[in-house]
Amino acid sequence: MPEQFIAESPEQLPTRETILSMSGLEFMEKVLAGELPMAPIANGLNYLLHSVKLDEIVFRGAPGFSHMNPSASVHGGWYGTLLDSAMACAVMTRVPQGSVYTTLEYKVNIIRPIPSGMLVDCIGTVEHAGRSTGIATGKIVGVEDGKLYATGSTTCIIMTPK
Amino acid sequence: MPEQFIAESPEQLPTRETILSMSGLEFMEKVLAGELPMAPIANGLNYLLHSVKLDEIVFRGAPGFSHMNPSASVHGGWYGTLLDSAMACAVMTRVPQGSVYTTLEYKVNIIRPIPSGMLVDCIGTVEHAGRSTGIATGKIVGVEDGKLYATGSTTCIIMTPK
Amino acid sequence: MPEQFIAESPEQLPTRETILSMSGLEFMEKVLAGELPMAPIANGLNYLLHSVKLDEIVFRGAPGFSHMNPSASVHGGWYGTLLDSAMACAVMTRVPQGSVYTTLEYKVNIIRPIPSGMLVDCIGTVEHAGRSTGIATGKIVGVEDGKLYATGSTTCIIMTPK
Amino acid sequence: MPEQFIAESPEQLPTRETILSMSGLEFMEKVLAGELPMAPIANGLNYLLHSVKLDEIVFRGAPGFSHMNPSASVHGGWYGTLLDSAMACAVMTRVPQGSVYTTLEYKVNIIRPIPSGMLVDCIGTVEHAGRSTGIATGKIVGVEDGKLYATGSTTCIIMTPK
Repeated sequence: MPEQFIAESPEQLPTRETILSMSGLEFMEKVLAGELPMAPIANGLNYLLHSVKLDEIVFRGAPGFSHMNPSASVHGGWYGTLLDSAMACAVMTRVPQGSVYTTLEYKVNIIRPIPSGMLVDCIGTVEHAGRSTGIATGKIVGVEDGKLYATGSTTCIIMTPK
Repeated sequence: MPEQFIAESPEQLPTRETILSMSGLEFMEKVLAGELPMAPIANGLNYLLHSVKLDEIVFRGAPGFSHMNPSASVHGGWYGTLLDSAMACAVMTRVPQGSVYTTLEYKVNIIRPIPSGMLVDCIGTVEHAGRSTGIATGKIVGVEDGKLYATGSTTCIIMTPK
Repeated sequence: MPEQFIAESPEQLPTRETILSMSGLEFMEKVLAGELPMAPIANGLNYLLHSVKLDEIVFRGAPGFSHMNPSASVHGGWYGTLLDSAMACAVMTRVPQGSVYTTLEYKVNIIRPIPSGMLVDCIGTVEHAGRSTGIATGKIVGVEDGKLYATGSTTCIIMTPK
Repeated sequence: MPEQFIAESPEQLPTRETILSMSGLEFMEKVLAGELPMAPIANGLNYLLHSVKLDEIVFRGAPGFSHMNPSASVHGGWYGTLLDSAMACAVMTRVPQGSVYTTLEYKVNIIRPIPSGMLVDCIGTVEHAGRSTGIATGKIVGVEDGKLYATGSTTCIIMTPK
């Protein structure tokens, strides 16, 4: 399987025409297949797309020193970025060709500290997707220990340019 | 005024004894004065502490290419990391010497896209701080245009180790 | 000034034509003036509209025995209903004639218990209102003691039927 | 099975001693068995406890005219009150004897309008319960149609009086 890649310059990002030319599910499948780039933010925050299916997206990553608080625990922003990614991309799997979407809000509950370097899966799941809105929830789970590290929820708006 | 610095290795992070030896307000003032380090995550996400006072913390920064979505807009995780930082540190200004705190949850409302490279202030404000909990809200505002780009809220728990 | 009234039967509720025939601000002003009814839920939950202006709505009420938890404190649902009402109606003041809106999500932070029978103001304030979304925040404040009892935030969608 | 009852006067509410004398799970089981009262707010909002087990509570109810908005749809406060009840009581099933708890915050996502008079289940599920905090999520599901009407999440604090 071709490897995923993360966009390293603006020219590598898909054009608006590319985005509008396929469904959100196709788009995510192409990212997984290495035909379209991952979001640049994934680079600094150290996570990659792990699986794609209708209504469910998994990102896998591990926090490190560069994602920490002064108190040497993982910053809440790392949890939130992963959850926002997984939940929004889950909604994207329900966005039809010709439509776009964006995150209106998300909420993160931090349950326990993720040890530095530990691999976690962030699973985003669609709860509802209609013509104009998408709602998803998310979980961060340890790959080895199976423990729940955080939960989240999001509201996205789906728009069809005329 | 000495410049702020961001911790570049675990040895630069303050010890638990250091954290417990002063109030949260003193801690934040020392970060602003460059005597204690900023959180490592600030480096990759490109923001610094801008001002510190009781009940209010401002971080200032600008998103760039490395904080983007595939659709070339700033990732919701950048908004959330900034807001979590400012809101949690605002609560920290009310944490007394000998106590610690941590974020239980935060929520982010994204109002409009921040143009790449544009400087924003993220203002965290305490709404309530008691013995065991702290509640804060936050706003991301353009430094030049004064527009509101996002709002947030958080719940922190304050604990006194025995 | 004519008194406000709360709808006591479905026939008293405004028709969709009535709702679409005026701006949201005009609608709220007519409720305040007693020309259109308050929401039926206000009856059981004991609150009334207190003031209306562009971007800000205040409801005033007092919780009683019938709004309590088993532990004799006011149920979180009372806080949430008041906040949802004030925040959504604040957004309504920015909904133009011919458009409708609905609440997508709201969040409530409960700060301290409201004593039974104590009068509070619930202030909803618009943070942003665009063509398709409205964001508001809210506060519950004691009328006499000025203390903050709860905060909230909401996301509404604004729609224009074709 | 004895029927549940809703407290109709302050004297019917359990004393603090009663609350502290048993675990939260036992308390909820006694409410289900009609030995302890339901919260007074359940009366006006028309719902009852439907099932109790460790980590999961179900309330069942139906909204009516008295829970409506001016636009004749069910008020967001009804969704929120049900979700807060189910999520907080789910956390309660993990509160040990001698401890108490309270809701710090909750969030509600409204997915679709509940038809007036339609029976729904509101299921609260614990995601995490530790010594000092409890996190739960919730769903409102139609009893007959099985559709999802709303989701929620909450953070509770658990305290042990000394």
